[in-house]
Order: sequence, then structure tokens, then C-alpha cells
Amino acid sequence: MIDPEDDKTSSFIHRTTKQEPPRNIRRFLIGRPLETADEAHQTIGKRVGLAVFASDALSSTAYATQEILGVLAGAGTLGFGYVFPISLVIVGLLTIVVVSYEQIIHAYPNGGGAYIVAYDNLGRLPALAAAAALLVDYILTVSVSVSSGVAQITSAYPAIFELRVPLAIAFVAFITLINLRGVKESGAAFAIPSYFFIAIMFLMIGIGLLRLFNDSLGTVVDPPHVEHMGEAILTQAAFAFLLLHAFSNGTTALTGVEAISNGITAFREPRSRNAGITLILMAFILGTLFIGISYLARETHALPSEAETVISQLARTIFDGPGILYLCVIVGTTTILILAANTAFAGFPRLSAMLASDGFMPRQLTYRGSRLVYSYGIISLGAIASVLIVVFQASVTRLIPLYAIGVFLSFTIAQSGMARRWWRVGQLTPTEGTSKQRHELSYEKGWSFKMISNGFGAICTAIVMLVFAVTKFHDGAWVVLILTPLLIGIFMLIHRHYTKLATGLSLEHYGEPPPYMGRHRVIVPLSSVHQGTLAALRYARRLSDDITAVHISIEPGDTEKVRKRWDKWGQGTRLVIVDSPYRLFIEPLLVYIDEILTARQANEIITIVVPHFVPSQPIHKTLHMQTAEMLRRELLTTPGVVITEVPYQIP
Amino acid sequence: MIDPEDDKTSSFIHRTTKQEPPRNIRRFLIGRPLETADEAHQTIGKRVGLAVFASDALSSTAYATQEILGVLAGAGTLGFGYVFPISLVIVGLLTIVVVSYEQIIHAYPNGGGAYIVAYDNLGRLPALAAAAALLVDYILTVSVSVSSGVAQITSAYPAIFELRVPLAIAFVAFITLINLRGVKESGAAFAIPSYFFIAIMFLMIGIGLLRLFNDSLGTVVDPPHVEHMGEAILTQAAFAFLLLHAFSNGTTALTGVEAISNGITAFREPRSRNAGITLILMAFILGTLFIGISYLARETHALPSEAETVISQLARTIFDGPGILYLCVIVGTTTILILAANTAFAGFPRLSAMLASDGFMPRQLTYRGSRLVYSYGIISLGAIASVLIVVFQASVTRLIPLYAIGVFLSFTIAQSGMARRWWRVGQLTPTEGTSKQRHELSYEKGWSFKMISNGFGAICTAIVMLVFAVTKFHDGAWVVLILTPLLIGIFMLIHRHYTKLATGLSLEHYGEPPPYMGRHRVIVPLSSVHQGTLAALRYARRLSDDITAVHISIEPGDTEKVRKRWDKWGQGTRLVIVDSPYRLFIEPLLVYIDEILTARQANEIITIVVPHFVPSQPIHKTLHMQTAEMLRRELLTTPGVVITEVPYQIP
Repeated sequence: MIDPEDDKTSSFIHRTTKQEPPRNIRRFLIGRPLETADEAHQTIGKRVGLAVFASDALSSTAYATQEILGVLAGAGTLGFGYVFPISLVIVGLLTIVVVSYEQIIHAYPNGGGAYIVAYDNLGRLPALAAAAALLVDYILTVSVSVSSGVAQITSAYPAIFELRVPLAIAFVAFITLINLRGVKESGAAFAIPSYFFIAIMFLMIGIGLLRLFNDSLGTVVDPPHVEHMGEAILTQAAFAFLLLHAFSNGTTALTGVEAISNGITAFREPRSRNAGITLILMAFILGTLFIGISYLARETHALPSEAETVISQLARTIFDGPGILYLCVIVGTTTILILAANTAFAGFPRLSAMLASDGFMPRQLTYRGSRLVYSYGIISLGAIASVLIVVFQASVTRLIPLYAIGVFLSFTIAQSGMARRWWRVGQLTPTEGTSKQRHELSYEKGWSFKMISNGFGAICTAIVMLVFAVTKFHDGAWVVLILTPLLIGIFMLIHRHYTKLATGLSLEHYGEPPPYMGRHRVIVPLSSVHQGTLAALRYARRLSDDITAVHISIEPGDTEKVRKRWDKWGQGTRLVIVDSPYRLFIEPLLVYIDEILTARQANEIITIVVPHFVPSQPIHKTLHMQTAEMLRRELLTTPGVVITEVPYQIP
Repeated sequence: MIDPEDDKTSSFIHRTTKQEPPRNIRRFLIGRPLETADEAHQTIGKRVGLAVFASDALSSTAYATQEILGVLAGAGTLGFGYVFPISLVIVGLLTIVVVSYEQIIHAYPNGGGAYIVAYDNLGRLPALAAAAALLVDYILTVSVSVSSGVAQITSAYPAIFELRVPLAIAFVAFITLINLRGVKESGAAFAIPSYFFIAIMFLMIGIGLLRLFNDSLGTVVDPPHVEHMGEAILTQAAFAFLLLHAFSNGTTALTGVEAISNGITAFREPRSRNAGITLILMAFILGTLFIGISYLARETHALPSEAETVISQLARTIFDGPGILYLCVIVGTTTILILAANTAFAGFPRLSAMLASDGFMPRQLTYRGSRLVYSYGIISLGAIASVLIVVFQASVTRLIPLYAIGVFLSFTIAQSGMARRWWRVGQLTPTEGTSKQRHELSYEKGWSFKMISNGFGAICTAIVMLVFAVTKFHDGAWVVLILTPLLIGIFMLIHRHYTKLATGLSLEHYGEPPPYMGRHRVIVPLSSVHQGTLAALRYARRLSDDITAVHISIEPGDTEKVRKRWDKWGQGTRLVIVDSPYRLFIEPLLVYIDEILTARQANEIITIVVPHFVPSQPIHKTLHMQTAEMLRRELLTTPGVVITEVPYQIP
């Protein structure tokens, strides 16, 4: 196990330890630890990648059509006809966005999506804005998708309605745990339900279309009551606004498209290629399902309602009532809604690790746990989402359309960044390269076309975002508009802290002070004289001849005992007894130490040797005053002293 | 402020500091700090003492009569006639108990009541049983009395029923705060409501009796409906059981009588005399009120009911309807119910401090805060009582009769102890003394009479306790029967811990080991090389020449940086780099240290010098891994190492 090997300089010794994490309950839950060198084996292919990264995007087909219909109801029955053209426009937008992200994936193969693109091409602030929007989005995805999945379950079994919060948290905990086992395992675990959903939806749409062309498909039997059906004839402007509103609602279908760009590093090599193909596959499935559902919804006259989802109406119309296949659709939809959270678990930890390594989030987020995943990020996401679930009592479904605003902000920023990038590429000569930026650039043909396509995409998504902000402002979009700048502020504060720290500790202009040669004053605070305090004294005597023991006298009786015992055991060491008429312990000691610090000569050091009792069982801590602990905490913030703890244990 | 004064041995320096606790919000709330020497000024006289210690006992007059009538209702209307004779018997019992406690107060002027008496005369186990019963009693007194006071308020203002829990906790917090200001202040603050209650009750009873002899007192007009009125004629045995049950219910009037014996030290000198007179005064008032209320309740045909208290029925009968005086009675009763908690706050901290100084409870309980009161005890009592209020949602009134079982256990133990004491006194010759026990004994005349009176008292209270345990077992007396042994067990465990500690640290047979002369190995763990870690290295170089820096390599890139910098700044010090393929930090370091510990020679010391970053703001701690903290926690439990922290701060 130990392999000492002398290195080039005699003062370096290199050892390798195969020290594994201990076998405990954690290991049982998340699996055997992985070596850093195993990294390559933990990457995933296209099949698993689709299961991990598509579930969020695909789950939106479960409600996007309904969201459009819900707004169109404001224009009466005739309005419903617009659902199909609107869906076509949205799929067009999807195509633009996917093309952009395809470029991003190849341009930035180390992941980071909108954040990296913006950082590299637009500067820090847009990058942080994109990151903040995405992080909020990921958190909301988890709480909202799990809550809505649980809502589907409790509407089938109203008896467990009271259990919805613990149930939702159990789901979050389960997904958190699977993700702590690694992205590969989460993909494997959730591949079956994801592919099941895709299969059953294609089956439903396929049969639906067949029956439609057969003329054997009727309309929805016994449709649910629609709550806010418009009656009056709208003005042209109001109608345009309505269409815009319906369109923006439908764009929730695009949420989750950006996830792959953040998680490229999860893919097997050649990872850009693998990630890119997965993105295209995902977009194709998403677009087809969405268009299919919208088309069939119009043809079968499905209605938007809180009581029965459009998917449910479609399924029972296409499959002629609630049989086995209907049940499969419902179960598949519920499952994919919950699994949408899994995509967030793939994106959030990677993005936050990237922010952390740039110093915008706590550094702990870059730490990879025993399964090579960003454990702190995964656990944080699970915890914050659980808090939201508890606070909103798992009834956050109304937040569903909200977080799309954050996604569209990141779309806009990412595409603007790419447009800028192509512009800069175009400024280079074909042979020239640049390494000024974090990522090198070199001339590429067709830069102008790419710039225009990305620029157009940016404009489109920016418009959607604005429409969103206006139409949804009262429904809660303002929450995102507050949260995002707040998060950016926090990122900046954290960055300032790390920068200040790095400057403060830097060795750049560091003049090494001379070694300590002067007096070494040692102070030993003690409240009684026993084997533990004598052990501290024995250690102190090894350090220096200049030792002062200090006793803070609170009870005169105790002090008398200390004085007598010190006479016998103190070996002539000076004992200062400080009366404390107000029965304070820490404060008079600190005043005493401060006095000595003030009188200190340059190049002199002061060490406080604290006898520290360590109980054999942690519960026994409650039986002691923990003065050593309190003293240490106070002394740590006193510059100029070194704290030495001589622990003593009673077996 | 500093007054160094050479003592008999040259190595002692005695200093006095007038270091006062800082001026902060705490000081604003609980008042200016008091010097230990001020102790005598914090004692109370008879007048304030009565207000502090009598409120618990007096508050029981608010419900004792009703408790008796409630049981007698089982025998039909005729049964109510027995309320007066039963009350007379109870007052007889009160007299016996008070005589015993009068003796205890004079025999044990340092307080401690049943606990001290039992410890001194019966042994440890009975002493702990009495203490456990009393501590449980004090806690229940606080939660129950405050809850029942709040219940009276919310029955008058049903609108605030929902606020009963926060309201009750606010009352507990208020009483806690006042008690933290000192017993003198709590007495002063609560004297007016206590004396108001006494005055208004005497007025009510006096007018009642006058009108009764005038024949102008009628019976209760429009009496409340009685819930469980008996109909059938009872067998003689059943009737006897009923009377016994009624009697035991009525003995709740005696709760709180023991409080003074635990709190003698609160009184001004001559404290036994002052405490004794206060006890007699209290017993007289209690007996008179109780007898008076029971007598008038019988004469006015007051009925036991959940809907209207007996006191309320009496007041509106005597004062001819609900006028100002009626209101005064109700307000006074509500106030005294809440103030009963104050007596517990006088007793609990003193009793627990006594147990703590004997090593049966955490030593912190002996600590007197800035106002010379046992702050930890007061805060603990307030906290535990608040938890009970939250758990039982302030509806703990049904626990009222429960805790009397604990009180009677302590009565029985205290009186048995006193009987035993007189017996031992009788065995001495008039000139002989003994100092074997904690308290000295000397011959006293009339010991046999005293022994018989205490013995008789013990038998009486034991019978009441048994009746209580039997008649109230199902109502929850079993809770006390479980809690008391559990608490005794905890006391014993705590005592074992302290005893083991004292033995382990004792200097009795301690052979001082020779001073450290051997090698002083110093290990400096570091994760990067910067000003902070170089400061630790600089300190380490002062300690020893035998320094090893250890770097646990998690990220190869970081390690390369460490190696390069060490080459420049390490001053030739040996650096051991330990590869950690599983990205563990603490574990490989501990393994390395363990290896060195195993190879250690006798008389060699090993010091771990840990560079410890101290953020200027506590919130910044969240931005760091806290590895220094984790390492220290692990090392503290590793015998044989000394931990030195070299703190570094960034201003």
C-alpha cells in the first residue's frame, strides 16, 4: 500500500494510498466508491443520455397543448382551431433553438451551455444572468415536476391526498439518491420509464392519425366542463394578444432543451458528437409528439380543463374508453412528469460546479463524492426543492409555466453569445487564430450565415421572453425577475470573497518574514488541577520556559483547591489567579491575553495551550461546560495567538 | 483594575478584574450584572417570599373543591354533603405535612427539602426518587398552570382560541425572563397579583359567611348542568371507594407546600426562621381559603361542571351576579393560576443545582448567571415546559391532578427521612454528637414525639399516594410512575460519568511522568501553499526541526501547483504527497498520522500544526470546506497527538 519513492528533489516523498471510504450505510445506499481514474467509465452513450436529458423536455408534451388551449378558450370554441398553427410556430422556434445549441455543443465541448457561451463572448454579467436563470429553472423543475406527478397520483387515489407532501419529498429523495450513485446509474434506472413514455405516446398518436384518416376517430365523448370559456367577440388587438399569450404558454414545450448543453461532460467520447446526436433525437421526438398531440387535440375537440387533462381526453378517445392502453398513457405521463426532475439533477450540479470553480458559488460544489458526481450540488438541489415543496405544500403546479421565462432568458443569452462569437470568427483571417479568450477561435467558413441564424434565434427567443414577462407578470413571473438579479448579486459577493482571499494569501509579492527567534510565551488557562491539565503543562514545558498558568476565580472554594494543588504539582510555574466577581470565565481571560499581546515584542510568539477534555461518548459533551471550545472559538478571531489543544480522554 | 500582589509563594499572582459582562440586549432584558459578593442583598423577606412560594399552593384552591365535588357527583346530590368533612380531613393532612416541613426547614437550613432529608437519612435512591418526582412536578406545574390560565382567558375571549399555544409560550417566556432577573425581582413583580388574589378570596369568603349567618345567602342561581351525576344507589364498598377517590382528588390542594423547603436559601437571614414563618402563613391562608370555599360550596349547592367553575358559581352567588367584584375574583383566579408557575421557577433551579453539585445532573446547572440565579436551570425549565405546551397544544389541563402523585411521593420520603433522623437522634446521649453524616446530629429532647409525628405523617401521605396511584392509574398516573424511575436512571448514569472522570483525572496516586525530552515530530497538513500555510510552517519551525508537511492529492493539477510552490517556499522542509484516488481528504491523513504514531518512541511527542482559515464574517464559513475543523474533530479523539491551530485571517 505504501510506496515511498524519492522524487527529483530530496524533500518530496510521493505515496499512493488505496484508502477506500469506510463501508457503511452510505456506501450501501450509493454503491462502492469509484477511483478518479474510473472517470471515463462513468460516461454515458446516446441511449442512456436520451433517457437522462430528454425526460424534462418530453414531459412538457404532457401539458404544453393544454396550456395553449387554456388561453384560446378566451376566444370561445372557434379559438381552439388555432392550436395547430401555434404549435407549428413553436416547433419552428424549437428548430432554431436546437440548431443554435447544436453549434454550442460543438463549440464548447466541456459543457456549461449558456453560461460558458456568454462568459466567453458577452462578459461576466450576461453569463451570470444565464446561470442564475438556469439554476432557478432547475430547482423549480424538480419541485414542480415532482409535485405535478404526485398531483396526478393523488387525483387517482384521493385517499392519500393528505400524504402528498411526504410522498413528493420521498420521490425527490429517491431521485437524489439515484443521482448520487452516478449519472450512469440514474440513466439506467430511469431509461425504461422514459422509453415507455415515448413508445406509448407514439402508439397513441399513430393509432389516432390512422383512425383519423379512416374516419373512425370521433370527438371526445362527454368532454369536461371548461371554466373560462370566452363568449364576447374580441377586438382585433385583444385577439392578437390572446394568440401571443397562447403562443408564449405553449413555449413551455421548449423547457429542458438546454439541459444537454450543460451536461456534455456526462457523455462518452466523442462527446460533442454523442451529445449533438442526442439533442437532435430529442428535438425530433419532442417536436413530433407535440405536433401530433396538438393536431389530434384539435381534431377530437379536446378541451382544456382542470378536471381532466387533454392527454387523458385524447387517450380515451383514441383507445375507445379507459382500457389497458389508456391506463398505460396515464401511468407513462405521470412517470415522465416525475422523471423530468432527473434532468435537473443532471444539469444543476454540473452548472453549479462550473460556477464554483470560477468562484461564483461555494467551492464545495466542485467536490466530487465517492461516485464521481458533484455530491454537494445534488444534495443541495434535492434539499432546496424539498423546502419549496414543503413551503408550497406540493401544490406548485401553477408554477409550471413560470420558469419558462428563465429558460428563454438563457436561450436568448446563449444565442446572442454565439452570434457574437461568429462575428469575431468572421473578423479573423483564415490562417489566424486567437487564444486571448478562454476558448481559442479560428476562422470558419459560413460564419455569416451562422451569425445570422443565431442572431435571428436570439431575437425570437427574446421576443418570447418579453411576451412571457408581460403576459405572465401577475401570475408570478415577477418572482423570477426578482430571483435572478438577487442570485447574480450573491454570485458577485461570493466572487469578491474568493478574490479578496486569493489576493490576501497570494505569494506574488510575499516577503517571507524572518524565522521566530524571540521569546515564546505560553499561557495555560485552567479551571482545576488534574491529570488533564498537568498533561497540558507538561507539553507547555516542552515548548518554552516562559509559561504562565491562568486561573479565573469564580468560586473562592475552587480557587483555594487550585492554589493548593498547584503548590504541589505546578513545578514552580507561575500561576496567575484572576478574580471574576461577575462569574465570567472567557472575558477576563481574553482581557488578560490581550494585555500580553499588547506588550508583545516583534518576533515574539504567544501560544495558548488549552487542556481539552474529550468525552468518550458525544452525549457526554452535554455534561460539560465546553469552556475549551468557547475559548478556542474566541481565540481563533484574535490575531497573533496560536491555539494548542492538548486533548485528554478518560477511557 | 490590575493589582498584582505577590502571594506567599513567589509563583502565585493574584489579580482582581472588574470585568463586567458586556452591555447588550441580554443585559437590557435581565438587568445589570451582580457581583458574587452581592448575594446577601438578593435574598427575600417573608412578604415577598409568600408571594413567590405560595402562588402554587394557593392556586390549588381554585380547583381543589371542584375536584372533590366532581367525584362526589357519582353518588348523586346527597354525595355533595361530604365535601366539607373531606375538606376538613385534607386540612388535617395539610397540618401534619406542614409540621413536618417546619422541622425540615430548621433541620436543613441550606434547602433541598425531601432530597436532602432523604440523602442524609435514607440513602441515595430514595433521595433521587424524591428529587425526580419533584422535578417532574415542577415542570408539569409550569405547563399545566400556564395552560389552564390561558384556557380561562380563551374561554372568556373565544376569538383568540387559535392563539392559545403562542400565548401560553409567551407567558412562560415572560415568567422565565422575570426569574432570570432574580428571585427578588420575580417576587416584587408578582407580589401584587398574589396578594390581590388572597384579598379578594378572603373578601368573598367573608361576605359569603356573613350573608350565610344573615340568612341572606341563597343557593346558586341557574346552576350549570352536571355531566356525570350518579343515579343508582351505591354499595357500601363502592361508596367508600368513592369517598377515597374524592379525598385523593382534593389533596391536590397540598401541592406546592414543599416548595419553600427547597428554596430556603432564597430567604434573608435568619433564613430558617423566615422560611418557617412563611410556610406557616401560607398553610394558614391555604387552609382557611380551602375550608371556606368547600363550606360555602356546600351551602350554596355549587355544582362541579366543565362549563362553569365552582369559584365562578360561588362568586356570582355571594356577590349577587357578575359585577365588579365577580370580575375581580375571576381575574384574580386566572392570574394566580398562571403565577403558580413562578413557584416552580423558584424551586426547580435550586433543586437541580443541588443535584448537579452532587453530580447527578449536568454541572452547568450549578452555574449562576449575571443575576446570581441558576440561569441554566431557569432556562431549561422554561424550555421543557414550552415543549410540553406545544406537544399537548396547551390543552394539558387534564394533567392537573396527575402530578400530585409525585408531590406525595416526596412528602412520604421527606417525612420517613425525618422520622429516621429523630430515631438516630434518640440513640445519642445528650452530650454526644455525630458528624458521620453530611449534617451533624446532636441529642434533642422530645425526639420520640417528633419521630412519631413524622412517622404518622409519612404513613398518611403514603396512603394518599397509593390511593392516588390506584384511582388515577388510568388517567395518566402511570406516566409519573414511568418518568420517575427513568429520571433516577439518568441521574445514576450522569453520576457514574462524573465519578469515572474524577477517578480518571485524580492526582491521588498520580506518578508524574518525566518531562518530554525526546524527538518532537511536527506534521503540517496543507491543501495548498499560500501565506496562511506558510505562517503555519513558520510556527512549526519554531517548535522543532523535525517537520513533515503532508499534502493529500485529490486533483493532480492542484498537486502540481503545490509541488512547484513548495520547491520555492518550503525552505527544504520534507513534503509528503499522498495520492487519494477516492478523493478522500481526512481518512488518508489520519492513516498517515496513525503510522507515525505507531512508530513513535516513548517520550516523543507529535504535534499536528493545522493552518486554520478564519473568515472575517461567520457567513463566509459556508464558502469553505471546513477541513481544518473536520480534521481537528477527528484528531481530538486520537490519543497521543496535540493539535495546534495557526489561525490566519484576511482583514
